[in-house]
Amino acid sequence: MNTFGTIFKFTTWGESHGKAIGCVIDGVPSGIEIDEAYIQNFMDQRKPASSKFVSQRKEADKIEILSGLLNGVTLGSPISIIVKNEDARSEDYKNNEGIFRPSHADYTYFKKYGIHSWQGGGRSSARETACRVMAGAVARKILPKNLIIQAAIVQLGKLPVGCINLEYAKENALRCPDPNIYYAWEKYLLEVRKNGDSIGAKIKIIAKNVPLGLGQPVYGKLDAKLSEALMGINAVKSVEIGNGSSAVELFGSENADQLEVDSYGDTKFLSNNSGGIQGGISNGEDIEITITVKPTSSILKPLSTTDTKGNNTSISTNGRHDPCIAIRACPVAEAMVACVLADFFLINRCFKE
Amino acid sequence: MNTFGTIFKFTTWGESHGKAIGCVIDGVPSGIEIDEAYIQNFMDQRKPASSKFVSQRKEADKIEILSGLLNGVTLGSPISIIVKNEDARSEDYKNNEGIFRPSHADYTYFKKYGIHSWQGGGRSSARETACRVMAGAVARKILPKNLIIQAAIVQLGKLPVGCINLEYAKENALRCPDPNIYYAWEKYLLEVRKNGDSIGAKIKIIAKNVPLGLGQPVYGKLDAKLSEALMGINAVKSVEIGNGSSAVELFGSENADQLEVDSYGDTKFLSNNSGGIQGGISNGEDIEITITVKPTSSILKPLSTTDTKGNNTSISTNGRHDPCIAIRACPVAEAMVACVLADFFLINRCFKE
Amino acid sequence: MNTFGTIFKFTTWGESHGKAIGCVIDGVPSGIEIDEAYIQNFMDQRKPASSKFVSQRKEADKIEILSGLLNGVTLGSPISIIVKNEDARSEDYKNNEGIFRPSHADYTYFKKYGIHSWQGGGRSSARETACRVMAGAVARKILPKNLIIQAAIVQLGKLPVGCINLEYAKENALRCPDPNIYYAWEKYLLEVRKNGDSIGAKIKIIAKNVPLGLGQPVYGKLDAKLSEALMGINAVKSVEIGNGSSAVELFGSENADQLEVDSYGDTKFLSNNSGGIQGGISNGEDIEITITVKPTSSILKPLSTTDTKGNNTSISTNGRHDPCIAIRACPVAEAMVACVLADFFLINRCFKE
Amino acid sequence: MNTFGTIFKFTTWGESHGKAIGCVIDGVPSGIEIDEAYIQNFMDQRKPASSKFVSQRKEADKIEILSGLLNGVTLGSPISIIVKNEDARSEDYKNNEGIFRPSHADYTYFKKYGIHSWQGGGRSSARETACRVMAGAVARKILPKNLIIQAAIVQLGKLPVGCINLEYAKENALRCPDPNIYYAWEKYLLEVRKNGDSIGAKIKIIAKNVPLGLGQPVYGKLDAKLSEALMGINAVKSVEIGNGSSAVELFGSENADQLEVDSYGDTKFLSNNSGGIQGGISNGEDIEITITVKPTSSILKPLSTTDTKGNNTSISTNGRHDPCIAIRACPVAEAMVACVLADFFLINRCFKE
Repeated sequence: MNTFGTIFKFTTWGESHGKAIGCVIDGVPSGIEIDEAYIQNFMDQRKPASSKFVSQRKEADKIEILSGLLNGVTLGSPISIIVKNEDARSEDYKNNEGIFRPSHADYTYFKKYGIHSWQGGGRSSARETACRVMAGAVARKILPKNLIIQAAIVQLGKLPVGCINLEYAKENALRCPDPNIYYAWEKYLLEVRKNGDSIGAKIKIIAKNVPLGLGQPVYGKLDAKLSEALMGINAVKSVEIGNGSSAVELFGSENADQLEVDSYGDTKFLSNNSGGIQGGISNGEDIEITITVKPTSSILKPLSTTDTKGNNTSISTNGRHDPCIAIRACPVAEAMVACVLADFFLINRCFKE
Repeated sequence: MNTFGTIFKFTTWGESHGKAIGCVIDGVPSGIEIDEAYIQNFMDQRKPASSKFVSQRKEADKIEILSGLLNGVTLGSPISIIVKNEDARSEDYKNNEGIFRPSHADYTYFKKYGIHSWQGGGRSSARETACRVMAGAVARKILPKNLIIQAAIVQLGKLPVGCINLEYAKENALRCPDPNIYYAWEKYLLEVRKNGDSIGAKIKIIAKNVPLGLGQPVYGKLDAKLSEALMGINAVKSVEIGNGSSAVELFGSENADQLEVDSYGDTKFLSNNSGGIQGGISNGEDIEITITVKPTSSILKPLSTTDTKGNNTSISTNGRHDPCIAIRACPVAEAMVACVLADFFLINRCFKE
Repeated sequence: MNTFGTIFKFTTWGESHGKAIGCVIDGVPSGIEIDEAYIQNFMDQRKPASSKFVSQRKEADKIEILSGLLNGVTLGSPISIIVKNEDARSEDYKNNEGIFRPSHADYTYFKKYGIHSWQGGGRSSARETACRVMAGAVARKILPKNLIIQAAIVQLGKLPVGCINLEYAKENALRCPDPNIYYAWEKYLLEVRKNGDSIGAKIKIIAKNVPLGLGQPVYGKLDAKLSEALMGINAVKSVEIGNGSSAVELFGSENADQLEVDSYGDTKFLSNNSGGIQGGISNGEDIEITITVKPTSSILKPLSTTDTKGNNTSISTNGRHDPCIAIRACPVAEAMVACVLADFFLINRCFKE
Repeated sequence: MNTFGTIFKFTTWGESHGKAIGCVIDGVPSGIEIDEAYIQNFMDQRKPASSKFVSQRKEADKIEILSGLLNGVTLGSPISIIVKNEDARSEDYKNNEGIFRPSHADYTYFKKYGIHSWQGGGRSSARETACRVMAGAVARKILPKNLIIQAAIVQLGKLPVGCINLEYAKENALRCPDPNIYYAWEKYLLEVRKNGDSIGAKIKIIAKNVPLGLGQPVYGKLDAKLSEALMGINAVKSVEIGNGSSAVELFGSENADQLEVDSYGDTKFLSNNSGGIQGGISNGEDIEITITVKPTSSILKPLSTTDTKGNNTSISTNGRHDPCIAIRACPVAEAMVACVLADFFLINRCFKE
């Protein structure tokens, strides 16, 4: 259950405080140009310590490709990528040995596996998501070149954006797509951190120029697989496709994406409430998905909890964590969307002569 | 891609206006008592024409079990269940031959498969969900007897409930869990129908007495698989686990489900913002999921659209459709949750001696 | 575990003496012409009572297609095919209630499922293979038109053929490809039946005009999947690819299929010891596979055995069985080869632009 | 397609002359004691240069476990094992750049992937099988302690063994189970090598104390999955279960494994022609499988062949290869059997309360 995908698929391994983490990516056609620098670029986007708003754990997160390529071109064989864990500092966690961090996976893992890995969460740590970013980078190479996938934060705590400028979002440390709110967010986030607390956020992921026809009825629907992919990212609490939960208040006549043939003879949608997916199949419009990322569970503020021996206690996590984990979740969300699209892109070919 | 599940899995087949629809359920342990009446009971809950608030298409939806049972006990072999399509009345659809129903799957299916099945949507029709109800009924028999899964509508258009009384929800045609709002909903829904329109709704699915430890890290997380299962139901636009999208506005210190050992020595959660799932694994609390169901796409009110020949036109669906499809989606949502839980319940056994 | 295949896949259901058996075939591209008569033709080849050399159980084995087709053309949705069980005559088996038929699946099924289905074997009966023939017929329609798959018996008991004439094999009731041995086989088989016994046989399956490149390294090798497919047929005891077990006595220099560029510039193999598969991938030569089918387990001659209550007893099967089950296994073997090839044929497209 | 198994599953990666090869093993229950020395022991059995009868390529084949263990105990997370390629000496192969080695995978890989990896076969090299040995070692730890899996060579070229002494086979470099033939084999093999040639062999794999009930009807039959597993090993040309191809000459009355209740009240089989598997399910008897391994394709003797440019040429492989590859295939065959059994052992638990 550490593998994701059907034809384009990847398997991840590694505990957050073990020797290394890694990803084996299978189902990649031969003849595609990929090099370490290309993948490293995506890795750097989710790297800790990249700005003052994220965890200060220092990991070079330097990838090494061990197989699947010859002279920078894919062989059609599995691509194995590895990253060594360098700055584990598990002593940071030692004070909390045997104590369950509330709303983290500690309690359920302990009960399920009989093991309490106090050293930073093991497989449940967000460190595993680095492997998804590797896979996502490879997935993008399979997709058409003009297909763009970008994530931006559209609400930070109670502060939503007023507009979405994806170019702007690329350039700032908060993945903020609205220049008018950037400084308010920055100020707010530093305050949250100062309070030893964390805050939630909403991320919007947009995919442009997605080929029409991706997704397989009825248990391989594109929206269903995207939901699985995104809800499976650590700390994600909701997934909404297109207008999502706001569809509850609409009449059918308002919600319908009506169609029109334009003067060039092309069929156009007059709206995109469907978020680019109808009947589980991409319709050629932008795919738009919104996810909610809960506030980081590991915080400095003390919380009531219990330990493996059944005692009441409290916990204050001294580890170097993120005040808003959603920032670093953006490249992970992009990666998972890329992986799902690449998988369906390859599957689609099966049924075309 | 018409199969769902890993160990407990089912395959559905049949077009909405073909001869029959059916479901083959695999991975059912031998020795479980099941009979047709038991499954029929669940089928009747989603049956059209069961009340004035749902489609008036008359389908007896009488199931027939063709395999997998001997004297009312499972053999461990696949259970094949079939339902004949009786009241197809595809002439209702004939006026709309070649015309894309907006926000339905017509356009994407036509572009993907080169076929426009004007006869009621084929595989994309909600009729397919009858098969999920069959599978869900069998899934419940695999789960512990005290495990309860129930869905109720918690918001109809702009009208949310004030309380959740699951017993009350069972007894009324609107799956409404709040006696104080029932009549307002009823009045509202009749007005929507009178206007030839439809309306969205939110459904809450609650699972009680779920064993701790269901779900497999990291690509078999319980929340991820539930999201896939629920987003894959026709017309669902969002899936939220626990407090879902409202987590965006919370601080980590507010959102954390703190723990306490009570006087009996049992570990208790002081809140359930996680919705019963932490790190992708059930934690023993109630599983709580909220989904948004968009308004029915097929409505009487005319909408602008195009046809397979590239002409502008308009459509008004005369078929016998639901003013709020969410009502009939409730048993389907319950069924999908049951199937996911049953699958993980069986998978879990693999790892226990 | 009642599903076979990855992209082209089928699920079978039904007990040999239940109401019906059936097959759901998924992963079929849209737009392919198929009708009931076409599939029925393949079914008739394995039908009991078709000649004096096979079981005299009378089953019309009349198929009915319930979904996946519109006007004789595939929709891209699952094709559900059903066959009713008509001449079950389970009273034939009643004398043997609770008694394990030696070398049949009775003992293992009883121990595994706690159920002894004396009524003809349930899922373990060769009746299930009728469903494979349905799937194989559909699979052939996916493959290139000039691709031919044919099975013939190459050894009956101690009597091997001297030559392989596939055209001749098509025309006789024994699937015998050698006119010179036909009458010796016929005489021998009638004697075996008269003695209340059965006899083993070897089947050769040849696939011509198989595209080069089918099969996926390293756990989707074409020879490995063909072995799985063929060894999974009831009563098959060995699978050999190309020269198979006779390779044991060869030197590397003898076994090597040397290559030559001919005067047209085409690369040719000078031999086909590999049986058309090298490195798990088809090489464009004929695929040649030999399987051994053991003698039918159910015979009239009395055998020592035990029963579900732990008593010693003996059994003599009065059912109407085949003196050489390999004859009816031929169309099943062809079908399984067709299914494997069709699956890899579709998978191959994923990796070609 | 680089993954094998359903619940217990492993993914392998790495080209024979790349930086490293490795294996990610998933589905391992938590709490099992495993260490590097334990796995290394199995690796050493298939290591090149371990005796004069095998390839003289010098690989320490020193494994490193990168994840899945804490203090020598499994965590339930994927076990990632890596082996660096040290003595690749790809210059050995450089003379043969662009030339297809007959009966190797060169030609099919070139045609399929458009790449000719002259550096020792890439993924098609038998080096990949080292990863299977790692997985097999872990699989054995999941199985009951008294379950023994052992492979021995039962025929070398035209020289079959006269008896099978598994203890003896363990102690010699030829995996020979018959002391009376050992020296004849040794002499013969040195002569084959001296002639720059290679020779085929048959391997018998025996599994003792296999629990009754492993295998899932009808497309998860134990014999079918074992066939897939074994035929997928490089150079294997046939798989026979129990008496295998010799069943062709037997009557049903001879082939039947008759049953008897002994004086202790235990049901016993009077023979084991079935090789421990009936109806695709283990019956508690020894599992016995025979496979044929063709002579090594890479030999010193010159063979006619062609190259990637379409020219006729000849090849003589100077690489350090095995005169009888079957010797080193023994631990690989054992490993694959262990993996299949472990997978079914875990799957079986799903259906037992």
